[in-house]
Amino acid sequence: MFRLYYAPGTCALATHIALEEADAPYEAVLVDFSSQSQRSPEYLAVNPKGRVPALVTDSGTLTETPALLCFVAQRFPEAELAPLADPFALAQAQEFNSYLCSTVHVAHAHRMRGTRWADDAAAIEAMKRKVPSNVTECFELIEHKLMKGPWVMGDKYTICDPYLFTIASWIEGDGVDTAKVPRVMDHRARMLTRPAVQNAVAAEGTQIP
Amino acid sequence: MFRLYYAPGTCALATHIALEEADAPYEAVLVDFSSQSQRSPEYLAVNPKGRVPALVTDSGTLTETPALLCFVAQRFPEAELAPLADPFALAQAQEFNSYLCSTVHVAHAHRMRGTRWADDAAAIEAMKRKVPSNVTECFELIEHKLMKGPWVMGDKYTICDPYLFTIASWIEGDGVDTAKVPRVMDHRARMLTRPAVQNAVAAEGTQIP
Repeated sequence: MFRLYYAPGTCALATHIALEEADAPYEAVLVDFSSQSQRSPEYLAVNPKGRVPALVTDSGTLTETPALLCFVAQRFPEAELAPLADPFALAQAQEFNSYLCSTVHVAHAHRMRGTRWADDAAAIEAMKRKVPSNVTECFELIEHKLMKGPWVMGDKYTICDPYLFTIASWIEGDGVDTAKVPRVMDHRARMLTRPAVQNAVAAEGTQIP
Repeated sequence: MFRLYYAPGTCALATHIALEEADAPYEAVLVDFSSQSQRSPEYLAVNPKGRVPALVTDSGTLTETPALLCFVAQRFPEAELAPLADPFALAQAQEFNSYLCSTVHVAHAHRMRGTRWADDAAAIEAMKRKVPSNVTECFELIEHKLMKGPWVMGDKYTICDPYLFTIASWIEGDGVDTAKVPRVMDHRARMLTRPAVQNAVAAEGTQIP
């Protein structure tokens, strides 16, 4: 039985959905960000980075969404969540997820987590002002170049889909004009018809716009 | 024959080293950042993100260092650069590389690429001021928690090693007191004894402190 540490509204939702898709045995454990539980000694013993998600497995604890998603795909191959045997196709899926974590999530994080990268209030406000254009630029690249359609990698649903869905659920808050990214919005709507997505969203109480 | 697009002093070095370790057939193609070639129409046709690395393969083009490293490991399994058949061990390697790309590289990038996240000069200076403490915090986590030693994942050299080496070659410039991270510095020195590392570094003309 795995344990997934999560908080609503975070990227932990992507792994939560993947576990549901794989029909994996797991329990979800809430980390209460409102009381700064992610910085408690108890949680830092689980994940010294003080972030979610963290997945406690029978072999040890794993963090970082792209790694967790690939782990779920490889650990539950019958769910066919990634093209595991094709190095190029798997690399394409990992390329997409790596872009989400290193560029898109980071562009978003400058809206509410600016204190990670500067200490003074004016700088933090300056970062916030650039979030709408930055996140829009990322999602236009996804819309026009990266998403094959109907799913991210084409006809097959993969570990890219819950991750895109999760980060795309933040774009209204980030100031993106959703009319500019109709394929992303269609993807988000189709994701919400999947039972695995519905289950994870409902369990977390995460709000999807 | 692959083509690796790189620029000296960038994270392309990690993939460059991995290709050398795997004895892969490739040629390295310089993208001249001094003339902004990464933004030329010719290069944007290769990689619409306008960044390096990009690897052109017989199946298509791949970007994003963690994806490229795993691709090289899976495409050239005889080089044994990753624990491909063990989902947990592979996830640990990907977890480490994902941390490098989404947190450590990003912390570093606020020194010279602040214009990605804010437009005004004072904010960009404020970001620069926080780089030494941020990058130090990342490397102390690597030093004390993440690196198993002697190689990142323990006794076996993996795709985590060239990536750590590459980002660790920037830490003096980022203002890290290297005396605080002796295991990272020992790793960097041992990497430099490997022919694959020497070949890639020399081919790029990249300066290692």
